[in-house]
Amino acid sequence: MLRALDLAARGPVTGPNPRVGCVLLAPGSAAPGTGRDDEPRTVLAEGWHRGAGTAHAEADALRHAREAGVDVAGATAVVTLEPCNHTGRTGPCSRALVEAGVREVVHAVADPNPVASGGAQHLRERDVTVRSGFRAAEGEELLRTWLTAVRRGTPFVTLKTATTLDGFVAAQDGSSRWITGAAARAHAHSVRTTVDALLVGTGTVAADDPSLTARSADGMLADHQPMRVVLGYRPVPGTARLRGPGGELVELRTHDVREALLTLFERGVRHLLVEGGPVVTTAFLRAGHVDELHSYVAPVLLGSGRRAVLDLGVTTLGDALTFTTTSTRRLGDDVLVVARPDHQDVGRAARPGTTPTA
Amino acid sequence: MLRALDLAARGPVTGPNPRVGCVLLAPGSAAPGTGRDDEPRTVLAEGWHRGAGTAHAEADALRHAREAGVDVAGATAVVTLEPCNHTGRTGPCSRALVEAGVREVVHAVADPNPVASGGAQHLRERDVTVRSGFRAAEGEELLRTWLTAVRRGTPFVTLKTATTLDGFVAAQDGSSRWITGAAARAHAHSVRTTVDALLVGTGTVAADDPSLTARSADGMLADHQPMRVVLGYRPVPGTARLRGPGGELVELRTHDVREALLTLFERGVRHLLVEGGPVVTTAFLRAGHVDELHSYVAPVLLGSGRRAVLDLGVTTLGDALTFTTTSTRRLGDDVLVVARPDHQDVGRAARPGTTPTA
Repeated sequence: MLRALDLAARGPVTGPNPRVGCVLLAPGSAAPGTGRDDEPRTVLAEGWHRGAGTAHAEADALRHAREAGVDVAGATAVVTLEPCNHTGRTGPCSRALVEAGVREVVHAVADPNPVASGGAQHLRERDVTVRSGFRAAEGEELLRTWLTAVRRGTPFVTLKTATTLDGFVAAQDGSSRWITGAAARAHAHSVRTTVDALLVGTGTVAADDPSLTARSADGMLADHQPMRVVLGYRPVPGTARLRGPGGELVELRTHDVREALLTLFERGVRHLLVEGGPVVTTAFLRAGHVDELHSYVAPVLLGSGRRAVLDLGVTTLGDALTFTTTSTRRLGDDVLVVARPDHQDVGRAARPGTTPTA
Repeated sequence: MLRALDLAARGPVTGPNPRVGCVLLAPGSAAPGTGRDDEPRTVLAEGWHRGAGTAHAEADALRHAREAGVDVAGATAVVTLEPCNHTGRTGPCSRALVEAGVREVVHAVADPNPVASGGAQHLRERDVTVRSGFRAAEGEELLRTWLTAVRRGTPFVTLKTATTLDGFVAAQDGSSRWITGAAARAHAHSVRTTVDALLVGTGTVAADDPSLTARSADGMLADHQPMRVVLGYRPVPGTARLRGPGGELVELRTHDVREALLTLFERGVRHLLVEGGPVVTTAFLRAGHVDELHSYVAPVLLGSGRRAVLDLGVTTLGDALTFTTTSTRRLGDDVLVVARPDHQDVGRAARPGTTPTA
């Protein structure tokens, strides 16, 4: 299974589909989870999923076996995710495994996708032994953002802020370039390559005219460019940098965070990076739609200016939005704090999840 | 010299005197800095300074030699700081070295103390070879806070803040216990044991009734208790915790930061930890009297409340107070950023260094 997880990790972190790996073991090999870890295993073939529109991991492994002339009848398939049971751009993997004569399937994580699940049941009905939940923790971790999104029906949201030590994102006159240093900005660009979409509000478009592309330090565009999403009613000007090279531009004419997230999920977005200004940041926090915080903090004091977060409806410390830190990382003079909210519904009590008018 | 620096480091980090170490080498030993590092050295005696009122490092080493019946005539003294030349509670070390027959003195850092300096000159006039500046960087680093204070005539100031990620020290209703977690608070207490004095304003005394002691996690008082300084005109109430066990209580009835620092320096304070609220914090920043920032940041968002830093007179990012990070450290869910101001006179231009009325 660890090998299957390694294979899965070769797949793209972005896109609507999960990363999945598959190892086909020869009949008689000790299957994972059977307590026979020291017995030899014979690998017949391996495969992994390379993103939407390409073969699923199981199909990829079966094809490799066929190409190599290897018979997989009686084999055990070790898969990181429960084999799918629906026909999308590719056929259902559960059927392909049965047709190939696979007799046993071991998977780490059950498929949370309502359209694709049922694979285990299909297999069992055809006398294939199915064992699930093996190395589940590792499987969950690998697919964390995707699983969160698919189970809930809205994208996993990473909220990025870049502030001074006293919590400002710009000085009184609006100047904000650059509060954080080059290392922090480079890191933020690398994060952009790992998400499906970036989101800002119309206020940020008007104030900063950002291009919202993922770039290297020398300005080169990365291979993967996330969708660029603008939240709000003001149209993006024809001359905006957002209309230049980069990911698809999507304007969502709403201030409703949940509505925006549902729309983006339907469009295949599983991981959204919110890089908005204070209004959008506050709206996502109040709506309780933040799964992870990326807070870049620079050793700078302004004393006054534009605050990173506006009114959250919190008047006493006991009602504060609290997070658990998952990592901290020094980036030049700055520090990045990555943290997860202590409660998913944090802030929800405060007010309906709409964006205050900027 | 590295051995002498190790010896020096055994001394107390607090108090009006510097930490100094001394190694006496037998005649003929290769002195440091002469490029004969691979030749054997014979150590006759060692000594270090244990704090005000005790023997200086040179006197300590000479005494050890005497007690061991070792003749130091013709010896080389390796000292981390230029031997003093004045009679305080102990006699001048320069004279003691001459009288003991020491023929050569190598020191790392020149004595910046106007009353104590002149040791090298005294020695040279008595035909002692003096070489200075050897391992100067290490010597400076060991004595950094003390040297800064003595060269300038005001204490080295460490400014501590403990804030949310959005820069607040308390919620709207004033609740502030606790924004940072247990690990950060324990660290802050350990810092208290390394300074001569703590300072808060009368506002903090009124709001929090702090004891300002250095305590372990179980509430035990540490051996060293810093002086407790309250800045401002309101007298400390007779029932205040500040009047309980702990360091000496000093009330400075002024709002002038520089005047306060001069008074504290005269009273032997070389390293001051400012733990005030926003008013005092802002006054020290505006006065340009911050040498080091200890910023504890908790993964908490409040959106509103009491800001850590008040108006600094900064309206554009180019005038922001910027710092260079010397270290970052994760403490539980919190992060500590230690940073030094990019310019010592940062903020001085803004306004005279007086505390706004609280």
